[in-house]
Amino acid sequence: MANGYTINNSEHQRICVVMVGLPARGKSLMAQKIVRYLSWLSIKAKSFNVGSYRRLEEAHPSAEFFDIHNTEGERMRLQAAKLAVKDMMEWFEEEQGIVGILDATNSTKKRREWIRQLLAEHDIEPFFVESWCDDKELIMNNIMDVKTSSPDYVGQDPEEAAKDFMERIKKYEEVYETLDDQELTYVKIINISTQVVINRIQSYLQSRIVYYVMNLHIKRRCIWLSRHGESEYNLTGKLGGDSSLSPRGQLYAEKLPQLVRDAVGDRPLTVWTSTLKRTQQTAKYLPYPKLHWKALDELDAGVCDGMTYEEIERDFPEDFEARDKNKYEYRYRGGESYRDVVARLEPIIMELERQENIMIVTHQAVLRCIYAYFMNVPQDRSPWMVVPLHTLIQLEPRPYSTAETRVPANIPAVSTYREKGTSTLDK
Amino acid sequence: MANGYTINNSEHQRICVVMVGLPARGKSLMAQKIVRYLSWLSIKAKSFNVGSYRRLEEAHPSAEFFDIHNTEGERMRLQAAKLAVKDMMEWFEEEQGIVGILDATNSTKKRREWIRQLLAEHDIEPFFVESWCDDKELIMNNIMDVKTSSPDYVGQDPEEAAKDFMERIKKYEEVYETLDDQELTYVKIINISTQVVINRIQSYLQSRIVYYVMNLHIKRRCIWLSRHGESEYNLTGKLGGDSSLSPRGQLYAEKLPQLVRDAVGDRPLTVWTSTLKRTQQTAKYLPYPKLHWKALDELDAGVCDGMTYEEIERDFPEDFEARDKNKYEYRYRGGESYRDVVARLEPIIMELERQENIMIVTHQAVLRCIYAYFMNVPQDRSPWMVVPLHTLIQLEPRPYSTAETRVPANIPAVSTYREKGTSTLDK
Repeated sequence: MANGYTINNSEHQRICVVMVGLPARGKSLMAQKIVRYLSWLSIKAKSFNVGSYRRLEEAHPSAEFFDIHNTEGERMRLQAAKLAVKDMMEWFEEEQGIVGILDATNSTKKRREWIRQLLAEHDIEPFFVESWCDDKELIMNNIMDVKTSSPDYVGQDPEEAAKDFMERIKKYEEVYETLDDQELTYVKIINISTQVVINRIQSYLQSRIVYYVMNLHIKRRCIWLSRHGESEYNLTGKLGGDSSLSPRGQLYAEKLPQLVRDAVGDRPLTVWTSTLKRTQQTAKYLPYPKLHWKALDELDAGVCDGMTYEEIERDFPEDFEARDKNKYEYRYRGGESYRDVVARLEPIIMELERQENIMIVTHQAVLRCIYAYFMNVPQDRSPWMVVPLHTLIQLEPRPYSTAETRVPANIPAVSTYREKGTSTLDK
Repeated sequence: MANGYTINNSEHQRICVVMVGLPARGKSLMAQKIVRYLSWLSIKAKSFNVGSYRRLEEAHPSAEFFDIHNTEGERMRLQAAKLAVKDMMEWFEEEQGIVGILDATNSTKKRREWIRQLLAEHDIEPFFVESWCDDKELIMNNIMDVKTSSPDYVGQDPEEAAKDFMERIKKYEEVYETLDDQELTYVKIINISTQVVINRIQSYLQSRIVYYVMNLHIKRRCIWLSRHGESEYNLTGKLGGDSSLSPRGQLYAEKLPQLVRDAVGDRPLTVWTSTLKRTQQTAKYLPYPKLHWKALDELDAGVCDGMTYEEIERDFPEDFEARDKNKYEYRYRGGESYRDVVARLEPIIMELERQENIMIVTHQAVLRCIYAYFMNVPQDRSPWMVVPLHTLIQLEPRPYSTAETRVPANIPAVSTYREKGTSTLDK
């Protein structure tokens, strides 16, 4: 189905996000987050990291390698950029890519002009994204966090690595030119969005990427996810509805404050629920501010609302089969598909990126979609993920990955999981 | 219900949007659009125009009045600003305002510091919004379009008025200081969003306002709205469902291309429909690119889907009455309220602001919400508006108002309108 996000697809728009910035400015992190966000929205995106191409030739270069006056270093770095661009172009053509990201310092006007011309020849729109930072503490944190564990420094002493890396940055600083060409389409993120400069943004897709990157922050925080406690409908295997918690679901609601306190400690927390009874009853005893979102309501099963899987298989066998075949795209008659749920969750994800510690009490399908965003789960798998009842899931976003912990409440509940390809009529 | 937009309300956040800019930079237009957008989202907002306070004392001032060296003029302008701020403060207190807009040039750092301190004393967050423009053509268009019809020049020769007005701008230019204080929260819109500079945006509400103003454009365009043609469900008075067009609905679909061509001419157009059959069948013969949005689907009547008003009144008398009492807030069991529909239409409105000529074929409740945004219809009236079937509505956004034309297709259809307070059982 065409929707807002495919306006540009239908116009065959292709964008290359050209990252710009000195080393240790969070470019790769930003690039990977953009890829994850767009992929979650079904927009084909991929990042091409020039450093990893360069390492094919020179695995552990010293800072001297990055000196602009080192012609051999310069030649090899240009060669790496060419290889990355070549692979990106192939990806655009062969895999119908929509947003390619060229992840490198791209620190001079000359280099950017070279890229711009190459892209113009292939009818790809250049969109420059600069991460600019002069906050010494932020830079040092980034160096210590990420860069000393970089493939360039495998097996080296961290302090030595940090020192060498700062030397490398200095080499880049000597020639660095910030974005200021009024003709280019760009966004400049200054000191983690303290200031943002946006220039000549045209398309919908560009404006979405801009809005996303300007909402990112790098503060440490966690997100907790839980399904509602077992409900009366769960007991009878019915989908949807707005039933209350079962006695065991009620037990989970009562135990949840302790579970959450053990995980959260004294950090400030806000709890989000859906507008349905079972999530609000589950969150009832949690002593934190609460917010109810319609967008967190369960996937709407349309005409199948209130039915069991068995009844659906009996009364709508073709629908049952179609859903089994492509659960992500299948839209219940008069209801929603997983794709529809992702579209309505987009503002939730945006707000989650802006916020710090949040706990979300919601429903199976919605939780799968949120989880898929953070854990980068592809769409053929996300609708089939097992998310047990009565379990607190802790997600801790880190640079380049999200750490997960699951804390079961040890309160029995029915399983509401149906495996792909299984019939409920066989039982 | 608390939702994303009330996060800040619950934190008792109050914002004053302080407009900054030379005359004829579209500040008042922007201020009024922000008020309309926020009001539509149920966020209490009001604009306070300093010029109208100043006119209470000096109805038709000449350019000399605005000379910084004219102490009497300066005294009166400060006095007007004080009156506007005083009224705004009262509005915040007495009417629980959330976003007040101070619409004036606020062109010097001194004036802005005076406002910032006043706001700090009242625990109101200052958020500066500057419209900066050096495109001579844009400025002249604005002067000719709007300013020569300004209350300051009532009854004067337009050419003389324009000349005087340009003199007035010069007086301001002499002392104008653009926003550049890194400590302030601001957004600077340069040449109608060719470039946007965003500084220290913190809250959700601020980020929504920024995203809104950066998507605005001033190109001339029209929006056409139509309900789907009469459907089979319309004939039997049933709500919701996904029925096909009736024979008369089909006639409307066939006549629509001519109606649209007469209105649109040779301007480029894109047609948006919902994902339901009756809107796509209605748009079937329109020879323009089409896009189907789930967010344009009809208000979900939940358990009442497929019922007639009569059946609802009989089977759910309390719901029927509750809906009559507050139709905007009433949420069908397992379904939606008008408020819910507005929340899911927000991205549609944002995209409409970005686009040029768009035609939307959708459903009664959804059309009412979109219409309410453009025509500034309050929430106690919008759910009760009459929007007849088989009629093309043309909206032309102009500075300070939207012009409307209705073109009936002259194809009979059932009336699907139920007046407030009427019983369907009486019939």
